[in-house]
Amino acid sequence: MKTLLLAVALGTCSVLAYAKAPIGIVIHGGAGTISRDSMSAAQEQAYHAMLTHAVNQGYAVLERGGSSLDAVTAAVIVLEDSPLFNAGKGAVYTFDESHELDASIMDGRNRNAGAVAGVSNVKNPILLARAVMEKSVHVMLAGKGAEQFAKEQQLELVDNSYFNTEFRYDALKRAKQAIAPQPHQAAVPYDPAWKMGTVGAVAIDKKGNLAAATSTGGMTAKRYGRIGDAPVIGAGNFADNKSCAVSATGHGEFFIRYQVAADICARVKYQNKTAAVAAKEVMAELKKVGGDGGVIVVDQKGQLSWTFNTEGMYRALKAEGGEVISEIFATKP
Amino acid sequence: MKTLLLAVALGTCSVLAYAKAPIGIVIHGGAGTISRDSMSAAQEQAYHAMLTHAVNQGYAVLERGGSSLDAVTAAVIVLEDSPLFNAGKGAVYTFDESHELDASIMDGRNRNAGAVAGVSNVKNPILLARAVMEKSVHVMLAGKGAEQFAKEQQLELVDNSYFNTEFRYDALKRAKQAIAPQPHQAAVPYDPAWKMGTVGAVAIDKKGNLAAATSTGGMTAKRYGRIGDAPVIGAGNFADNKSCAVSATGHGEFFIRYQVAADICARVKYQNKTAAVAAKEVMAELKKVGGDGGVIVVDQKGQLSWTFNTEGMYRALKAEGGEVISEIFATKP
Repeated sequence: MKTLLLAVALGTCSVLAYAKAPIGIVIHGGAGTISRDSMSAAQEQAYHAMLTHAVNQGYAVLERGGSSLDAVTAAVIVLEDSPLFNAGKGAVYTFDESHELDASIMDGRNRNAGAVAGVSNVKNPILLARAVMEKSVHVMLAGKGAEQFAKEQQLELVDNSYFNTEFRYDALKRAKQAIAPQPHQAAVPYDPAWKMGTVGAVAIDKKGNLAAATSTGGMTAKRYGRIGDAPVIGAGNFADNKSCAVSATGHGEFFIRYQVAADICARVKYQNKTAAVAAKEVMAELKKVGGDGGVIVVDQKGQLSWTFNTEGMYRALKAEGGEVISEIFATKP
Repeated sequence: MKTLLLAVALGTCSVLAYAKAPIGIVIHGGAGTISRDSMSAAQEQAYHAMLTHAVNQGYAVLERGGSSLDAVTAAVIVLEDSPLFNAGKGAVYTFDESHELDASIMDGRNRNAGAVAGVSNVKNPILLARAVMEKSVHVMLAGKGAEQFAKEQQLELVDNSYFNTEFRYDALKRAKQAIAPQPHQAAVPYDPAWKMGTVGAVAIDKKGNLAAATSTGGMTAKRYGRIGDAPVIGAGNFADNKSCAVSATGHGEFFIRYQVAADICARVKYQNKTAAVAAKEVMAELKKVGGDGGVIVVDQKGQLSWTFNTEGMYRALKAEGGEVISEIFATKP
């Protein structure tokens, strides 16, 4: 209950950080109930180190004149390869004790997009999403069919056990105990903590092009082939040079129903708002209907920003001429 | 080539039909290369009869004070049960000679939504989408998991062969011949004719509530677990009492990338346009980038409308105090 009250209180004072920049990148590693009390100094340090590494990898691409598409891909690969985040290596477990990963990517130049849902053997789902965008006539592929396409594209495949981690397995066991009274229902409300940890990146390059990438293991103990917002263009991911680029994390069902990423960019496009202001508005409205999470955004003017309505969000940004800013909690100590 | 030129010419003069109405419903049975030359008088009559039956079934719900949600469900069930349309019984074949169906539904009152992708044994996918919305905590379920949920919800299940029809099988054979030179690629551009026939409905009820429903068998010869726009909220389907309700049909990849349904409603909400005007704008913009198809819309004022940038769209509407209007081609004879 304490957590819930705190989250509500934060709803009206979302944290914003931004800087004007010719080039820049923002990343996130998930939003949710991330409290200082529950995290050791060593853990905190590990998260900051990995966020800094990821944002630097993406920024290096931009600095040498690379595209925002390559920058967000590079940053998300780092986050997928780290067990700290619920994407790639650190993906949560499904109810059936396996892993099903989702990812999407979008190119603001031409609104090309690629998305994959429910893949179990692709080491870096963001690379598969990108291959769908660049090497197929489709936008969204799912399950075994998506895996067949990954094989044809010679992407690195792994056994599903590659994604196993002890702490995610413990989380599954706790989740199953909570679900146990209604084992055959898809109607059990999920604990907010089970859906933490999607990763994502948005960037603007020297040519002013925007891009967004999002990757996730989804929700702990998910069943029934549940697809969340991460692979749904307009919900968990969006990029259009005419407005902005967004990557989202949070309670996916709300992000789909409220078209969070597309709505932020619609306000930029049709109401001439900055992406930072539009994001703050949309996340505040989402909080009112019970949708928790956060977004990272960049608009055509290079304004980098984040906002969230939860206790914390793993996040980092680097704008031209600035140092890496890496943060975890909503409030300063 | 003749077809393409005609479609382009139509891009600037999309057909619009609307009427003010306290209650009303619009339905579609797919847009595409539907020419007078290729259709017999008997076929034409069969389509008009089925469109009229479907729109009347939906309208009857509204007339007796039922919800727009029940009305769009009733109309789509009729279209799914008819072999004339690419949804339910008349679903096209996948590359592997089976059928994978997608559907979605959305309630404008509260933006609740349900969607299913890649289901093979549910007689009426729109009922499964509705069960996902009403009986689960999720918005989108896919594949085997979605089918397991359908079984638990005691929906009517059928063998995949229920969806077999001879003329769709012939279409698959023709499609495979065209794909044959590159059998292992997902990069083969699809013939516009292969993706015709999604069905949908939008309605406004006596309480002024909006709803939208969309159902499809997808694209002939689809592979790799391809998901089109029909089950993607914001792309092929959208409903929000604050703006409008939309159901789309056409080249799904474009409808996802351009967020067609959500963009139409964003223009209503943020630019104070009518849904009819917004729909016309968005479909004209889509045509410029090569995306063909159509939409049906209803806004909060009860204005019913359709627009499309193809040679034809199976469509019908009924507004309070009016007769059923049922049309197929873009131009009058």
